[in-house]
Amino acid sequence: MDNFVFRNPTKIVFGRGAESKVGEEARAVASKVLLHFGGGSIKRSGLHDKVVASLKAAGVAYVELGGVEPNPRLGLVKEGIALCRKEKVGLVLAVGGGSVIDSAKAIALGVPYSGDVWDFYSGKAEPTEALPVGTILTIPAAGSEASTGSVITKEEGLYKRACNSELIYPHFSILDPELAFTLPPDQIANGAADIMAHLLERYFTNSRPVEFTDRLIEATLRTVIDAAPRVLAKRDDYDAWAELMWAGTIAHNNLLNTGRVGDWATHDLEHEVSAVYGVAHGAGLAALFPSWMRFTLKQDVARFAQIANRVWGLEIVPRDIERAALRGIAALEGFWGSIGLSVRLSGLGVKEDRIREMADKLTENGKRQVGNFVKIGRDEAIKIYTMALRD
Amino acid sequence: MDNFVFRNPTKIVFGRGAESKVGEEARAVASKVLLHFGGGSIKRSGLHDKVVASLKAAGVAYVELGGVEPNPRLGLVKEGIALCRKEKVGLVLAVGGGSVIDSAKAIALGVPYSGDVWDFYSGKAEPTEALPVGTILTIPAAGSEASTGSVITKEEGLYKRACNSELIYPHFSILDPELAFTLPPDQIANGAADIMAHLLERYFTNSRPVEFTDRLIEATLRTVIDAAPRVLAKRDDYDAWAELMWAGTIAHNNLLNTGRVGDWATHDLEHEVSAVYGVAHGAGLAALFPSWMRFTLKQDVARFAQIANRVWGLEIVPRDIERAALRGIAALEGFWGSIGLSVRLSGLGVKEDRIREMADKLTENGKRQVGNFVKIGRDEAIKIYTMALRD
Repeated sequence: MDNFVFRNPTKIVFGRGAESKVGEEARAVASKVLLHFGGGSIKRSGLHDKVVASLKAAGVAYVELGGVEPNPRLGLVKEGIALCRKEKVGLVLAVGGGSVIDSAKAIALGVPYSGDVWDFYSGKAEPTEALPVGTILTIPAAGSEASTGSVITKEEGLYKRACNSELIYPHFSILDPELAFTLPPDQIANGAADIMAHLLERYFTNSRPVEFTDRLIEATLRTVIDAAPRVLAKRDDYDAWAELMWAGTIAHNNLLNTGRVGDWATHDLEHEVSAVYGVAHGAGLAALFPSWMRFTLKQDVARFAQIANRVWGLEIVPRDIERAALRGIAALEGFWGSIGLSVRLSGLGVKEDRIREMADKLTENGKRQVGNFVKIGRDEAIKIYTMALRD
Repeated sequence: MDNFVFRNPTKIVFGRGAESKVGEEARAVASKVLLHFGGGSIKRSGLHDKVVASLKAAGVAYVELGGVEPNPRLGLVKEGIALCRKEKVGLVLAVGGGSVIDSAKAIALGVPYSGDVWDFYSGKAEPTEALPVGTILTIPAAGSEASTGSVITKEEGLYKRACNSELIYPHFSILDPELAFTLPPDQIANGAADIMAHLLERYFTNSRPVEFTDRLIEATLRTVIDAAPRVLAKRDDYDAWAELMWAGTIAHNNLLNTGRVGDWATHDLEHEVSAVYGVAHGAGLAALFPSWMRFTLKQDVARFAQIANRVWGLEIVPRDIERAALRGIAALEGFWGSIGLSVRLSGLGVKEDRIREMADKLTENGKRQVGNFVKIGRDEAIKIYTMALRD
């Protein structure tokens, strides 16, 4: 186990009707909030009215900024920063999924910073201050509701980059599984893939031994594998949604990477795909992960066999552990297929002719590598993208 | 899953040599600390010198109060409160195991309170304020290093009572597995039993479904079952200690009871045993839990069968799930026996003639019940104590 420091101060308020507590939670932090949201589904669902009523009842003033798109854009972030400064906002309240929360975090970082907030995403500067962020989660997927991460896309050049800072752990996050009842099936499946990818990124590590966190990750994977088909089959299955939503938060709140270094190459590979093709992040991850796994298998066959055994229930034949390892990858593909996901990039409309471009952007023309379990440079990226194109 | 609120702000600093960071961590909180410890083993081991050197290097002043006993006493707590007030201490720094940490938490609660600190343990008052607490953990067992709990014994009448408050989550806790290398085997085994009891108390619940937290608890149990015999076999096995220590913290930091109500009757039953006989808490828990399990089996045979299957790897025969349930209890007894614990009270010198007295004290002469999974009144307590006496 590697040495580590872990502290996650996000207050989770979980359960039926929890969104009615937002006024109270916000008032403990600020007297005026920016209410930040996406394309308006929260207005159709009635959630917007509930939030406004709770804020008003608590005497909390608010200004609004909607319009966050999937793969949230820097332009809107800058609008939000200007608005918060002008209106002297003390808390950015995200109501939505990971894109809205990531956009809110970027605004929170930008408000007290005199430079360009993109500096934190390009690696030019480290944040030292941020406004507090609160969230009401509507999509179990990104885990941003209790994470240090924010991913933003810069329109010019379509760069999709992440910033990680403990400053943007949300102050509070409100999780009501009922808010997910209206999600369409593709978003549910993409969300499940995103959660599973967060777990797999952490699982594939060269840190060892990491037995406790291995087991916690496996437990969380089994939960998602059990719950996702149940919510797809019965869209208002509160119990299954509750398991999926809480698992999605724990998958990404940094507990499961204590004492270990995760990989994260697949996330980086995917960011280029969704920047170019605009595919949903979860869908891109499902289309890339099996190929990344086959590409990196030899790095630690025992680890691949272990997950096959403990997560997928497959027998390990001690004289041939690779057999279980390979069957485990196939089981993952089978599961993702069963909930309607494509496990090849070809299924998402990706074409061979832009692979070189994506690999160049990912690696800054071959100058940088991504991933920790196995280092991926330009050639390796091209190989994985190409494997993922094939049927 | 029940509705819940979860927030654990304790900063964990984990790894080899982590205790050298105590000065830095303390300085972020206060300019003067109370250094609180037990019987002097930290002086023999050299830990005391290291802590003092780190505090001095960081420019943090300190006063000392040693002498905490197992089952920490109210008298010393009151001494600590007076000392902190006189010396204007801003942080209570516990260096030791659960007893030292619990004593430090009681001091932290008492300093800003004008009444008798025992009020918080007798249920007469609720705390509203506390000094911050920091810890350096030397014994993986009680989980107090990241919990809301503190258990103190009042000398007069030998009452052992708990106070739970979010105010006493430690501000920081430093966990260096190397500090546990010198523990004697009985303390290691007692510690493992204590950790497992924290997991079992949470596991046996009537809240349902609670599938995700079930799996997390099972994962943590398997980790302890794997690691404890390894540290007993090789006392300086850093890797195994690291797994055991981190599992011990997570077992009791409130994550694993999110959305569920644990039982805790066995803890209450045990407090009476250790108050009267002075036995170690973990030893008392191991001697009581199997009997409590047999007594409550019919409440939820499926849950007992599930733990037998997932933790002990025992087959469930679908037409007779009770068979697995009973074999699971036997497997727990077998494991505890294998690490040197007695699974009967008779093995700890407990005699029949004081059972009635313990049951009376536990239930205030039959006026209160303990436990949530199954309510335990005086008659039930007598039954369980009696079952636990037999071979």
